[in-house]
Amino acid sequence: MDKIAIIGLGLIGGSIGLALKASGVDLEVVGFDVEVSAGKRAAKRGAVDRAIWGLPETVEGANMVIIATPVMEVREVIEAISDLVPSGCVITDTGSTKESILAWAEEYLPTKVSFVGGHPMAGKEVSGINNADANLLHRARYAIIPGKGARPDAIDAVVRMVELVGAKPFFVDAQEHDSYVAAVSHLPIVLSSALVTSAASSLSWREMSKLAATGFQDATRLASGDPVMSLDICVTNREPILHWLDEVIRELQNYRGMVEATKDQAGAEKLGEAFASSWAAREKWLSMYESGRDELDESSVKLPSVGDQVADLILGGRMRERYQRVLALQAQRLADRLPKRPRAP
Amino acid sequence: MDKIAIIGLGLIGGSIGLALKASGVDLEVVGFDVEVSAGKRAAKRGAVDRAIWGLPETVEGANMVIIATPVMEVREVIEAISDLVPSGCVITDTGSTKESILAWAEEYLPTKVSFVGGHPMAGKEVSGINNADANLLHRARYAIIPGKGARPDAIDAVVRMVELVGAKPFFVDAQEHDSYVAAVSHLPIVLSSALVTSAASSLSWREMSKLAATGFQDATRLASGDPVMSLDICVTNREPILHWLDEVIRELQNYRGMVEATKDQAGAEKLGEAFASSWAAREKWLSMYESGRDELDESSVKLPSVGDQVADLILGGRMRERYQRVLALQAQRLADRLPKRPRAP
Repeated sequence: MDKIAIIGLGLIGGSIGLALKASGVDLEVVGFDVEVSAGKRAAKRGAVDRAIWGLPETVEGANMVIIATPVMEVREVIEAISDLVPSGCVITDTGSTKESILAWAEEYLPTKVSFVGGHPMAGKEVSGINNADANLLHRARYAIIPGKGARPDAIDAVVRMVELVGAKPFFVDAQEHDSYVAAVSHLPIVLSSALVTSAASSLSWREMSKLAATGFQDATRLASGDPVMSLDICVTNREPILHWLDEVIRELQNYRGMVEATKDQAGAEKLGEAFASSWAAREKWLSMYESGRDELDESSVKLPSVGDQVADLILGGRMRERYQRVLALQAQRLADRLPKRPRAP
Repeated sequence: MDKIAIIGLGLIGGSIGLALKASGVDLEVVGFDVEVSAGKRAAKRGAVDRAIWGLPETVEGANMVIIATPVMEVREVIEAISDLVPSGCVITDTGSTKESILAWAEEYLPTKVSFVGGHPMAGKEVSGINNADANLLHRARYAIIPGKGARPDAIDAVVRMVELVGAKPFFVDAQEHDSYVAAVSHLPIVLSSALVTSAASSLSWREMSKLAATGFQDATRLASGDPVMSLDICVTNREPILHWLDEVIRELQNYRGMVEATKDQAGAEKLGEAFASSWAAREKWLSMYESGRDELDESSVKLPSVGDQVADLILGGRMRERYQRVLALQAQRLADRLPKRPRAP
């Protein structure tokens, strides 16, 4: 019987344990967490057969070690287990930045073991073993990034583990992985936090906050993530995040120009096209994401090609008429310094 | 029996109708929608007593007219009903920008009626009469912005209507309202759209999109709103949105500098404090928003004061140690051009 050791029994580690035990495959799953209560809870929930209070016993005789701690702790764990792991052991992790983690593995682990990085693309707003769920990784993509010198059978073992928990293996280069998640996962965290900082540091925040509702709640949800995890991510994936911050700042300046240009008809149409294109791109992505398909399917969302027709097709053909009159009114008011026509009796 | 006419039977108009009918007060509620099917559905769902297919009959004899269309259509409706509304009628709306709408009301409506602008701070991702809900506005703030010359009894009537649907009246100046919602409601729409545009226009989007998951989904949710509504908002609330775009771009440049500065310990601590402060501000807001309280309650969330202590208190006192070693490792690798120590056997 294979022994799998999970280090870190939070949302992800706990969910992997639950899914492994639910798979029906004959495995011994043991777990370790620095918080004793998390280990107890994991054992009670059946995420692990046993929670163990020391790293040596946890990894002793393990065929696979899954490190499911926050990113910065992955380094500590790798260092701590480097002298403990048995020869031939497969070590993997679930951290969200991979170049740093692969470098740590290369730095600290002996060559008698194989490191195969992993990153399940699934999560929840809430964390901890109590929120772990055997189905959390069901149909989720699971990035696999083998370390230098990882043996083929070690890579196969991680693929089997990923499939056993119901996820879909996805091979990607560490540098690409980090650049991609910088854009779709880390940049949104910084955007959310910057939006909160902007609004909350306004002198009007006390009054303004009363008008904040679901839109603000959605757009800032990631700012409620653990600040330590956010910082870990920025420290370990700094350069790709800086690249994407530059990109989004440039795009926001572009949008700013478009909003300013809505003073005339052509400008309003251009901003309308931008919103429509962004809407279309997200709908396409969402349809792929929700269906669990592998590719963006251009035909799955009924959309006209972007460009001139967007205004007429997506926006329903009424945009010209719609804005012409309002813009004319605005221009006239400006010209007249806001005199009003006499009111009807 | 009072007659209330709702023009526009979508999510908001339909929800107001359902809540008014559920209130048990003896009211005749009639409705009009340019889409005949929406009117039929509203009548079937009991959001209105009758759906009427013409504006003259809809507003005839009405004590109150509630315009619940998208912002730009509010102008069209105001213009269309200006010759039809009975003397003494109270006209209100539910649009999300108020200076433009108040200007239109002043421009088109006769002095024999009162205009009192309104804006319920509630919504859903989904729209339309089928998603209307008698409880949608329950405990939601409802901004009230009386037009010039609105009679006190007209303002009272709108306050009663707001209370009848379960919402909480909130008086605010039109200019303040527009500035506040620009920050907490409109700016997030532009941010979401710019994030999608940035990512989706990348040459790697096809691969990158496969790694996008819940974080991307949350941060871009508003980009899936109706592009026409987003454009309407930018056209009618242009200047406040430009102001807030400048603010958030400045804040993002600030975060960019902080991310770059995480190369050393002091920089990592500063970014950690920024994430912690943003986290704390959102938690405070969320606790106020979810509890339906009126004020940000400083004591409701257990937080240390921001500053030096944040690192030690919020981040659990381990941050110094946590980053010192990793940053030292990064610095060393950089200095050594990434030579690796010999692996253990």
